Amino acid sequence: MDQLNPKPVNSSPLTPIGFLERAATVYGDCPSLVFNNTTYTWSQTHRRCLQLASSLSSNGIKTGHVVSVVAPNIPAMYELHFAVPMSGAILNNINTRLDARTLSLFPPNIETPRLVLITDDDDDTSSLPTAEFIDTYENMVKEGNPDFRWVRPKSEWDPVVLNYTSGTTSAPKGAVHCHRGLFIVVVTSLIDWAVPNQPVFLWTLPMFHANGWCFPWGMAAVGATNVCLRKLDVSTIYGLIKHHGVTHMCGAPVVLNMLSNPSEAEPLQHPVHILTGGAPPPAPVLYRIESLGFIVTHAYGLTEGAGVVLSCAWKQQWNKLPANERSKLKARQGVGTIGLSQLDVVDLNSGESVKRDGLTRGEIVLRGGSIMLGYLKDTKSTSKCLKDDGWFYSGDVAVMHPGGYVEIKDRSKDVIISGGEKISSTEVESILYSHPMINEAAVVAQPHPLWQETPCAFVCLKSELTQKPTEKEIIEFCRARLPHYSVPKTVIFKDELPKTATGKIQKFVLREIAKSMLYSRM
Amino acid sequence: MDQLNPKPVNSSPLTPIGFLERAATVYGDCPSLVFNNTTYTWSQTHRRCLQLASSLSSNGIKTGHVVSVVAPNIPAMYELHFAVPMSGAILNNINTRLDARTLSLFPPNIETPRLVLITDDDDDTSSLPTAEFIDTYENMVKEGNPDFRWVRPKSEWDPVVLNYTSGTTSAPKGAVHCHRGLFIVVVTSLIDWAVPNQPVFLWTLPMFHANGWCFPWGMAAVGATNVCLRKLDVSTIYGLIKHHGVTHMCGAPVVLNMLSNPSEAEPLQHPVHILTGGAPPPAPVLYRIESLGFIVTHAYGLTEGAGVVLSCAWKQQWNKLPANERSKLKARQGVGTIGLSQLDVVDLNSGESVKRDGLTRGEIVLRGGSIMLGYLKDTKSTSKCLKDDGWFYSGDVAVMHPGGYVEIKDRSKDVIISGGEKISSTEVESILYSHPMINEAAVVAQPHPLWQETPCAFVCLKSELTQKPTEKEIIEFCRARLPHYSVPKTVIFKDELPKTATGKIQKFVLREIAKSMLYSRM
Repeated sequence: MDQLNPKPVNSSPLTPIGFLERAATVYGDCPSLVFNNTTYTWSQTHRRCLQLASSLSSNGIKTGHVVSVVAPNIPAMYELHFAVPMSGAILNNINTRLDARTLSLFPPNIETPRLVLITDDDDDTSSLPTAEFIDTYENMVKEGNPDFRWVRPKSEWDPVVLNYTSGTTSAPKGAVHCHRGLFIVVVTSLIDWAVPNQPVFLWTLPMFHANGWCFPWGMAAVGATNVCLRKLDVSTIYGLIKHHGVTHMCGAPVVLNMLSNPSEAEPLQHPVHILTGGAPPPAPVLYRIESLGFIVTHAYGLTEGAGVVLSCAWKQQWNKLPANERSKLKARQGVGTIGLSQLDVVDLNSGESVKRDGLTRGEIVLRGGSIMLGYLKDTKSTSKCLKDDGWFYSGDVAVMHPGGYVEIKDRSKDVIISGGEKISSTEVESILYSHPMINEAAVVAQPHPLWQETPCAFVCLKSELTQKPTEKEIIEFCRARLPHYSVPKTVIFKDELPKTATGKIQKFVLREIAKSMLYSRM
Repeated sequence: MDQLNPKPVNSSPLTPIGFLERAATVYGDCPSLVFNNTTYTWSQTHRRCLQLASSLSSNGIKTGHVVSVVAPNIPAMYELHFAVPMSGAILNNINTRLDARTLSLFPPNIETPRLVLITDDDDDTSSLPTAEFIDTYENMVKEGNPDFRWVRPKSEWDPVVLNYTSGTTSAPKGAVHCHRGLFIVVVTSLIDWAVPNQPVFLWTLPMFHANGWCFPWGMAAVGATNVCLRKLDVSTIYGLIKHHGVTHMCGAPVVLNMLSNPSEAEPLQHPVHILTGGAPPPAPVLYRIESLGFIVTHAYGLTEGAGVVLSCAWKQQWNKLPANERSKLKARQGVGTIGLSQLDVVDLNSGESVKRDGLTRGEIVLRGGSIMLGYLKDTKSTSKCLKDDGWFYSGDVAVMHPGGYVEIKDRSKDVIISGGEKISSTEVESILYSHPMINEAAVVAQPHPLWQETPCAFVCLKSELTQKPTEKEIIEFCRARLPHYSVPKTVIFKDELPKTATGKIQKFVLREIAKSMLYSRM
């Protein structure tokens, strides 16, 4: 077997960027992007991306530079997932809801960034300070060379995206991913979700959130029609599903909750596959959304993993179970995708694998080709989660069920410790979600002089209620269904809960409120 | 971006061998293999493979050793695709129909191989020379340790399979593939064929042929039920499809021809996806098989590419075309899968890309992660096809259509040159297949004193005919449909055509016959 070493013929760097070239060949005359009254074909998208890459290049953008993007889910945002890497640069999507202070915390901040204005049909540009911009996006596309030879990566380990974590618990950290990592997560999540060729994909998941779980590249691989939209509005979503024959979409559980809210929900005319993740979906929400005709796959991904790394792989025999049991099973984060090489849940102190009993808690640890290279300019945070033992420590607390399925019990920072008992905030939330009058719920720790911490519940009630429950009634509802120590000692009614741009509830904000309310009560 | 280099956490070698471990977790209680009255679950298959790997190891098999297997599509054959690599060794499947002389040409031949007897329920072992065997397969499984720690590859470039080419044109050459190459071809061909989770896969494609296009590993990735069978018998196949609810199968065009033969064909009760390749499928065969309810995907693979590297990616708008146009489009080999980094058709002399006109012929050249490391102990043949310019030269002659789809016109050795005109033997064959009385056809070059070569046709007629066509009638049928120089000058009727074990017609045998008949006629 000597002399049989890698050769140029078989060692081209793995990358998802070339999928666009192929889509232009295979699906050149098929729709790639649809937005309001605009439709592009795959050959147009290919051409526009080459033109933009060429213009970026003419503007001095080179391999290793960072191009940051602040945009909603419009065609430009999709194109930039190809055009920026094609110029050799690194794509850095920025959450559209971040404030200037948070942005200033980002490591690659430069004093005088060159700004390009991205607009679309909907925008009124008359009041914009256009002088601040060196050019407009459409102009750069127009002036670019469609025969530009795009910059192929020299190594598959070359960085290609920089994604800031959503910051539910701390300041944003910039996860850097390479071409190889993206290729692996793209192909394995397509297989995991069993995405067919030429699906119609509705962009309900923000692309600025972990690159829309890498589906901009995945949808090019399968020649999808990408239906864009700016805002998550329930009736708009139902309208687009009907009009374009949407087959696939993604969204955090908060989106599933919105779509299944009885006052706005519309039973589907054809089945729609929806991939959910980002937070554990409450069983009652799963039950409601599936009864409308959505086929839910529950996946677990994280910014540091580039996209989906676990999913609740569904077994045909589970279809025979009653609906509430099905929902409970589907609320599990599940098993590693084929892109993950190893997965374990380990004791927070000893680091040993926990028992596969569905009860013993530990931290989810992972190994696999899509785990980030590290955080940008932050070796301390990098070495804290990419440990010397060769595992990535996710910070998520979970149990391992006897069948090998993982179920998250909490973020390690969200565990409530009351009189020595560990309380899973998601478990308490799941009970609250099953209350007929509650629309949304979040449970956090409230400091307590005797018990150290006690659970404090924040709840939003449904809007159409004629009679509202009292704090006492909700506590009694929980007491009938939970161990005594897990029952919230305080219930706070809110009109809405503070959320990140991706729909994750900001528990650190709630913790502050819980703390301050405690002192005002005492 | 300094210091962001690969780390152990994200650089585990890519390999499909670990898919079995995952299948045992996810689909542990679901069927993995079905054969006659035997059914295994994925956890049983996982356990059996570990046991066999352990026994191989105890017998001195180590990393880099070659384990050769001669077996039909029975469970043992499937298990060996995992068990041999799990022991660290290289799997070498041998065509069950090869004769001793051909086997003796194999480079890794050793003087006293240690033989293990593989039997199954169907075998009568009483007459076997059991003394020649060191053990039986089932005994090795039984005695192995199910807690064996399998030998993970040190590098993803480590060799893992050795596959001999089928030898349609020359002596077999041993293509060596690495773990990374198999991983890439497995995941990208699952996406290409859009294989869902938990399909029911019927093993009509011999696993000894390019590892059954790598689907033993692919089927573990999606937790399939693998239905095994020893022989390609039409009524058995239809019986298994019905009984097990088969959803997916593969086969050379000769299998499609068998299944669609009017005397034995049975319209399906449910749709079955069939992936065909290995030779260009004649349009009339495609038409007949699809009218029975099979959904055909046409792919192009080769031993040197580990499996499927091109496929005729189907566009939804083509469904509106008339049946005969659909069949013609589907007979194209198509476009590169997402596992291929580049594909071209180049002029045989200049090496330049041919025009995308569907007319100009050239050789298919490829680049991609699944191209072999090289031929075993044959640097001359290796450097002949893995050229210094970084491309793999396939030896297949094709045209590039304006849309970027490739269509094979011939093996470069099968082109017939008559009076300076290049004749595609497959084009002539396609006309012969459209004749209502012809079941199979093959066209080869016959030496000619004036024209250098002329086409000579070998045909098998359908069995149920009351009246048979004459040589003259067939020549006239061709003359009405082909340029004059392409019309066969000789038609030879045969009861059957010589074939390789994988159903490819052995043209070199026919060329010998054509040559000898010419001299006997002259």
